[in-house]
Amino acid sequence: MIILGIDPGLERMGYGVIRKQGSRIEALEYGLIKTPPTLLPDRLRLIEEQLTEVIDRTKPDEVATERLLFAANKTTAMDVAKALGVALLVTSKLGLPWCEYSPPEIKLSVVGTGRAEKSQIQFMVTKLLGLPSPPKPDDVADALAIAITHSFRVVPSIRKSLG
Amino acid sequence: MIILGIDPGLERMGYGVIRKQGSRIEALEYGLIKTPPTLLPDRLRLIEEQLTEVIDRTKPDEVATERLLFAANKTTAMDVAKALGVALLVTSKLGLPWCEYSPPEIKLSVVGTGRAEKSQIQFMVTKLLGLPSPPKPDDVADALAIAITHSFRVVPSIRKSLG
Repeated sequence: MIILGIDPGLERMGYGVIRKQGSRIEALEYGLIKTPPTLLPDRLRLIEEQLTEVIDRTKPDEVATERLLFAANKTTAMDVAKALGVALLVTSKLGLPWCEYSPPEIKLSVVGTGRAEKSQIQFMVTKLLGLPSPPKPDDVADALAIAITHSFRVVPSIRKSLG
Repeated sequence: MIILGIDPGLERMGYGVIRKQGSRIEALEYGLIKTPPTLLPDRLRLIEEQLTEVIDRTKPDEVATERLLFAANKTTAMDVAKALGVALLVTSKLGLPWCEYSPPEIKLSVVGTGRAEKSQIQFMVTKLLGLPSPPKPDDVADALAIAITHSFRVVPSIRKSLG
């Protein structure tokens, strides 16, 4: 099973694609979808295009995103939500099942505590996926952590027999 | 010039299409894009489909939306932003120029005061467009008010010579 994790954002959207085989997980591709500070609709279209390319390349079976909690910066939070809306539209049009996890759920799954620091997430993502170096920036590590969280939750065989 | 006004929302998205000829404005079509309380990605796809149909039918030249301000209900505000992201993606892919106006700007344009009540917007939208009855619910009246606000701002001949 291939899982796409998305850490939503307008300026920078982190993505991480992992493959789960039995209890083994490995990273297939990870990086940032970036948009320049142009008009909002154009940025949303760039996100759609780049995310579609990532999905075409990596062919995920399922998608997981971070649940947006209210942030200190209201304007940024609204922009992140607009970008997430576009990402979910893309995955929905491709028929990909979707789950979302809150930041504490992700930290708990990957680090073992819901109050983990960013550096701990970096460390554990690197270790769990056997990466040669920590994935940077944090948006990318977070996206991989989201995918890992989902990989710990899903049991493909049971899901398949239910589906 | 044909203008599409959008009052963003996930459960109910109001839209209003008006035609401006000289100083005269008239309503072409208005209504609600509604989504049932199913999974978020499916709702976003329904919005994309319905909004695309509205645009195919009415062929607007420009699009105007309400600028999202932070609302009392954080979860609702985030969902509205996701829906708006999808709406802007649709209009961007169709190459439609876009403007946004804050609620006080819209009230000031249509009613003459930035602190107008919903009933005053209903009344003025009905009057300005010569409608047989007030457009209901408020989302629809607001969408028409957004389109009217944009019609007061744009001067097609100058824009065209600049474009």
